[in-house]
Amino acid sequence: MILKGEFVPGERLAEIPLAERLGASRTPVRLALGSLEHEGLIEPSPGGGYQMRRFTLREISDAIRVRGLVEGFAARLLAEEGATRPLLRALHDCLSAGDKAVYKARMDLDDYAAYVEMNDTFHRLIMDGCGNAALKRSMESLMGQPFAAPSAMLPMQSSMEEGHQWMQQAHRQHHALVQAIERGQGARAQALGEEHVEIARMNLDYASERPELAANLMPGLKLVGVHPGK
Amino acid sequence: MILKGEFVPGERLAEIPLAERLGASRTPVRLALGSLEHEGLIEPSPGGGYQMRRFTLREISDAIRVRGLVEGFAARLLAEEGATRPLLRALHDCLSAGDKAVYKARMDLDDYAAYVEMNDTFHRLIMDGCGNAALKRSMESLMGQPFAAPSAMLPMQSSMEEGHQWMQQAHRQHHALVQAIERGQGARAQALGEEHVEIARMNLDYASERPELAANLMPGLKLVGVHPGK
Amino acid sequence: MILKGEFVPGERLAEIPLAERLGASRTPVRLALGSLEHEGLIEPSPGGGYQMRRFTLREISDAIRVRGLVEGFAARLLAEEGATRPLLRALHDCLSAGDKAVYKARMDLDDYAAYVEMNDTFHRLIMDGCGNAALKRSMESLMGQPFAAPSAMLPMQSSMEEGHQWMQQAHRQHHALVQAIERGQGARAQALGEEHVEIARMNLDYASERPELAANLMPGLKLVGVHPGK
Amino acid sequence: MILKGEFVPGERLAEIPLAERLGASRTPVRLALGSLEHEGLIEPSPGGGYQMRRFTLREISDAIRVRGLVEGFAARLLAEEGATRPLLRALHDCLSAGDKAVYKARMDLDDYAAYVEMNDTFHRLIMDGCGNAALKRSMESLMGQPFAAPSAMLPMQSSMEEGHQWMQQAHRQHHALVQAIERGQGARAQALGEEHVEIARMNLDYASERPELAANLMPGLKLVGVHPGK
Repeated sequence: MILKGEFVPGERLAEIPLAERLGASRTPVRLALGSLEHEGLIEPSPGGGYQMRRFTLREISDAIRVRGLVEGFAARLLAEEGATRPLLRALHDCLSAGDKAVYKARMDLDDYAAYVEMNDTFHRLIMDGCGNAALKRSMESLMGQPFAAPSAMLPMQSSMEEGHQWMQQAHRQHHALVQAIERGQGARAQALGEEHVEIARMNLDYASERPELAANLMPGLKLVGVHPGK
Repeated sequence: MILKGEFVPGERLAEIPLAERLGASRTPVRLALGSLEHEGLIEPSPGGGYQMRRFTLREISDAIRVRGLVEGFAARLLAEEGATRPLLRALHDCLSAGDKAVYKARMDLDDYAAYVEMNDTFHRLIMDGCGNAALKRSMESLMGQPFAAPSAMLPMQSSMEEGHQWMQQAHRQHHALVQAIERGQGARAQALGEEHVEIARMNLDYASERPELAANLMPGLKLVGVHPGK
Repeated sequence: MILKGEFVPGERLAEIPLAERLGASRTPVRLALGSLEHEGLIEPSPGGGYQMRRFTLREISDAIRVRGLVEGFAARLLAEEGATRPLLRALHDCLSAGDKAVYKARMDLDDYAAYVEMNDTFHRLIMDGCGNAALKRSMESLMGQPFAAPSAMLPMQSSMEEGHQWMQQAHRQHHALVQAIERGQGARAQALGEEHVEIARMNLDYASERPELAANLMPGLKLVGVHPGK
Repeated sequence: MILKGEFVPGERLAEIPLAERLGASRTPVRLALGSLEHEGLIEPSPGGGYQMRRFTLREISDAIRVRGLVEGFAARLLAEEGATRPLLRALHDCLSAGDKAVYKARMDLDDYAAYVEMNDTFHRLIMDGCGNAALKRSMESLMGQPFAAPSAMLPMQSSMEEGHQWMQQAHRQHHALVQAIERGQGARAQALGEEHVEIARMNLDYASERPELAANLMPGLKLVGVHPGK
């Protein structure tokens, strides 16, 4: 609900009205609010209760960068410790699905949807595949933050004239990442994971410079403050 | 309380008895339990309520490794983006305090305490100094896990015959880390942060092979299951 | 002469006939042969004198990989120690020249020539810009080996159906490399330098599987043995 | 002869007197001089012939850093592609020999000699073990430069009060390097190779600040100019 843009930054969130709106009792609402505060999505309101936080561009960009670090490390662990055959097969299925979606003269909406689905699967496979539970927990808490998820910054791309090319570029990085895992190249896998999110960070910058366009495509962007952090 | 070893793995934690024991009402206890579950310290009990989780060595070792990744990245950001003068001064104060504590023929308990305090300050300065809020949040959630904190695996060292030498080694890495930050050597800072925790991981292995010794020095170690993960 | 493919692997190179063919005296020819042996291009012949060495694919691919390491390190040093304004300006001129050559619907031969010239300049600027003389010397000795030079594996690309796309991809890496240098991101610069040569290594594999095509476009490829190293 | 310090920077080296002094004919002397010029050890003299080059501290320090890069890459390749059993056995023999030499209350001259021999073997095993011929050639040409060889900066350490401790530190890095190779941790192996030479670079700085002491222990140091590069 929050990530769908139904609230604007600074809007008060109080237990009772929220519980009524959701048709729930107060206790689960209170627990949910506590958890959202922990994840940094809402903050205590001066007038009591909570209010929506305003995110600076810098905060979002930083969270995306940490995602790159964490995903890169997961891929590095797979390269170092070896990936199972079923995992490699599933990753190659993703590569094929992505090839079909992006290597054509023109992508339509179905191709776009297929790419997003493949992209989510690909990134989930790598996180689930690495055996490090603490790393997975870090990833989960990052995913709760706005725009940090792997496909969060994709919608913008379809509206960019060069969007198609960037998706091809991103998908080439998927290929390189799988190759690095298969060849045991851990340093390369780490670096590719980090470089991969630079496309998302660039798209974020692009969106922030075209607020009207962005607001239509990504309602959640309203959470981003007008005064971007440096 | 949990990290102090007052509960053993598998022990049931129910709201009402806990609230009585702590002299608190049920709601804050319930919120605290929800939060502990989120951090992976307790798990739902088959008989209702929660129970203490049993940690494998592998889980703890993995969490320490993620800490190295996160601290290394914080140091890398400082190297790349530059550290402020007051921060560098504070880091050098830590280096001096550590030099005094470890570069002597024999460390006594005061030296040991001084080193632990310096060590906590040093690692906190680097995390606080890097401007990335998402990275700090990842670090905070790691710190909630048993034995992942910077000084968590130190106590064992004082009882090892080579403990003193390992603290000297760790402190040399502190020196190298500050040098890397000052010289803008980001790749080196990242690698030093990751290598630094290898000492903690080695101490964990050491402790796990001497359970009687370890249990006296670190009551929290009872949380670690007898059947270590591979 | 050698790199132009005028000799085939195993062909004998003797001082006197070579001196006559080149219209030179024997001493400089002997010095040149000694130097070529040092660089690994020729080897002592069982029948006296020297003979052309046969290169395996693996050797060439390995030399290209070392070039990536060395160029990546040069870029890392620039990121860590800072690049001068004139150097950054010259790098940005390269980026613009490359943009003009590759971001169009169809590249013609002039675009291709412009890209090759820009590419050579770009890589030379980075090596010359880094202050490490020993690194430059390593680069020079690598450049003497067949196909290790930055533009050596480009000719093949224009004949590949996807050649144009690969040049766009390579040029995007040029952009990222300059950004990494400007932002002080040394680890990223190192990794980009290493990833950049993966395109050349892929082209080499491509060429080796189409020997007839490759021989026309790159006479020097005759030096590569028919039995590729694993 | 040159590295033994028999010539001072700026001293002229002419073919005929050198040939007489060595009891050799002029041609091999000329070839040797050409090769030394290529390696950067001598330079053309304004008065004809060659003269000894003067090395700045910066040049030597840079060459050592490139050695760290090259050795780190060799170790990374071994970690990524796997080391053979005999190689691992030989590396472990080195670790044991080093343990015996440095982990004692006081090192005597025999321990010192044993460490130097082990150190040379260890570094040679890693370079020879990696399958990349171009990388080996880069290493060989680095080894021709003054003070770049693995044990070149060790002699100084025995005269430092903390020399013994630094050798222990360096040997702990040998242990970590072998562990990284065995565990497939390529990124770690690369970083350890680079960090390893920081001890040599530090010793070089130490020696340069105590010229009288250094000149006795390392005659070759005369090649280093009095005006160190920045």
